Amino acid sequence: MSEFTPLSELGEFGLIKLIKDKIELRHPSTVKGIGDDAAVLEPQEKQIVVSSDMLLEGVHFDLTFCPLKHLGYKAVAVNVSDIAAMNAKPTQITVNIALGARFTVEAVDELYEGIRLACENYNVDLIGGDTTSSRAGLVISVTAIGEVAKGEAVLRSGAKENNLICVTGDLGAAYVGLQILEREKQAFIANPEMQPELEGKEYVVGRQLRPEARMDVIHELKERGIKPTAMIDVSDGLASELLHICSQSKVGATIYKDNLPADEQMLETAMEFNLDPITCIMNGGEDYELLFTVPLEDYDKVKNHPDISIIGKITDASEGVNLANKQGQAFPLQAQGWVHF
Amino acid sequence: MSEFTPLSELGEFGLIKLIKDKIELRHPSTVKGIGDDAAVLEPQEKQIVVSSDMLLEGVHFDLTFCPLKHLGYKAVAVNVSDIAAMNAKPTQITVNIALGARFTVEAVDELYEGIRLACENYNVDLIGGDTTSSRAGLVISVTAIGEVAKGEAVLRSGAKENNLICVTGDLGAAYVGLQILEREKQAFIANPEMQPELEGKEYVVGRQLRPEARMDVIHELKERGIKPTAMIDVSDGLASELLHICSQSKVGATIYKDNLPADEQMLETAMEFNLDPITCIMNGGEDYELLFTVPLEDYDKVKNHPDISIIGKITDASEGVNLANKQGQAFPLQAQGWVHF
Repeated sequence: MSEFTPLSELGEFGLIKLIKDKIELRHPSTVKGIGDDAAVLEPQEKQIVVSSDMLLEGVHFDLTFCPLKHLGYKAVAVNVSDIAAMNAKPTQITVNIALGARFTVEAVDELYEGIRLACENYNVDLIGGDTTSSRAGLVISVTAIGEVAKGEAVLRSGAKENNLICVTGDLGAAYVGLQILEREKQAFIANPEMQPELEGKEYVVGRQLRPEARMDVIHELKERGIKPTAMIDVSDGLASELLHICSQSKVGATIYKDNLPADEQMLETAMEFNLDPITCIMNGGEDYELLFTVPLEDYDKVKNHPDISIIGKITDASEGVNLANKQGQAFPLQAQGWVHF
Repeated sequence: MSEFTPLSELGEFGLIKLIKDKIELRHPSTVKGIGDDAAVLEPQEKQIVVSSDMLLEGVHFDLTFCPLKHLGYKAVAVNVSDIAAMNAKPTQITVNIALGARFTVEAVDELYEGIRLACENYNVDLIGGDTTSSRAGLVISVTAIGEVAKGEAVLRSGAKENNLICVTGDLGAAYVGLQILEREKQAFIANPEMQPELEGKEYVVGRQLRPEARMDVIHELKERGIKPTAMIDVSDGLASELLHICSQSKVGATIYKDNLPADEQMLETAMEFNLDPITCIMNGGEDYELLFTVPLEDYDKVKNHPDISIIGKITDASEGVNLANKQGQAFPLQAQGWVHF
């Protein structure tokens, strides 16, 4: 007596119908969503921004500890984060998924439940995509589209000498969260009776499993009249992202170790795993916070924001990109990022 | 002494640079291409259309007989075909790829050579995407964007009673081409000394390996002052696509067996494999021709086009969707499409 329905019982068209029937369209710019050869949009006088990312089972996520609903949410959030990093507002997404034969209709519905929830939270329309089978694991490829008024897009290339370097939220937690999940997985493999020990680790584990795109900060910056000179989202780690801004803006930077935002649970967990917290912050990645630069004149506007830390300043390119400690010693930064190949 | 460079020697950023450095941007609507969190486009007063498709090794293609350059070309062409089917002009694409460790830098370059060639032929800008590693096979996910003047997009839902049903080119060849390739693969597995026998099969094999999107027909229809009432591209097979048009337009259809366009080489090859040529035409799929309907008044405008066949007419929904033979007998159509799961 199984409560699960094999995908073969539904077929491709049945699956598309299942997904399509639960979709709500919210944006006036969405003229036609799922159901034709292509979706039709009408951005009017706006510029549009487009970003695309692909997540693969066994490379970007592990279904032994990543619930499908969170995974669906994350797949949308990481793409919305790229749209936020352009200072744009997300409007539509397409989602391509490839599913192995082991997937049930209920599992696919769970995945789309997360996708729908993210669409609701970020006010995005799911307008199309492709569902296909996979001989190997699950693959999710999302393309996000956003709108921005002409002249308002923020690139990586606009940072200027003496700009303040800001970052939202805290860093390194998603990485230590992953260490916890990997440890509990090993414990479970060794003894399947074992219950995962996640008590007191909810924050860091949540940062790994269900990150949020910082659209809230984009809206708040606009309200405070702040337009960043350069911006990028922190997906590969702070060091790597700062190096992107500096190389594209042809500037240097100094950031201050003491100003780096860290959560208590991240610090404790890093200690537990004998990890240097600064390495977690600088190279951990997957925090999906925003790293941006603002003119020095905006200091008063950003200094008291509870969710923004001023972590350094932009310098002349000749000074390089450095991490400075309290004693004034500076160490050149190196990008680590993800080693894929 | 190897001439091949492992991907690990280049790293992700090196690979992105390799891809990016060879890209030309052609469209005035492309404000910013690869190199930031998202691309920036300016469609101005136009509507935009968006379509996305994913191709997986072992499901959609077989690298034992599919050259990487053709695969790259095909990945773009099948997405452009969806844009064409909206009566729109393709303008930009994003390409996400996941690569196994066995891929060399030279192989990736070959794949992108095909992508670039398709971008050139279809006048499309490659504006972004994601490169990542895969534990299993190669995955390519493409999102295509196109432009269309407001009111000019052609949906599947506009077919009206007494409209003529037209199709471009010929059908069934891509499917029999695949049969040839599968047979030669088996022969090669049995005896690796064996050279593939493709003589006299160039057309059908070419249809499978390197299909073209029919943008030429879209331009010609416009020149002749024809706007289809409904349109779809033939990716899953004529029967399946016609059923989509009929169900979305709430109409019936009769198509005439004798009017179905077939190539000589396809007919011969179908015989060789003991396949019913009509089944190949109706359910073969992957031809990427355009199926469309036009008002009866346009008969004179379409009748002498060398690349358009008038294959039937739209009827009242109550008559169903039928294939009629010379004797006037009608058989209800059934969609087969791809059975993925």
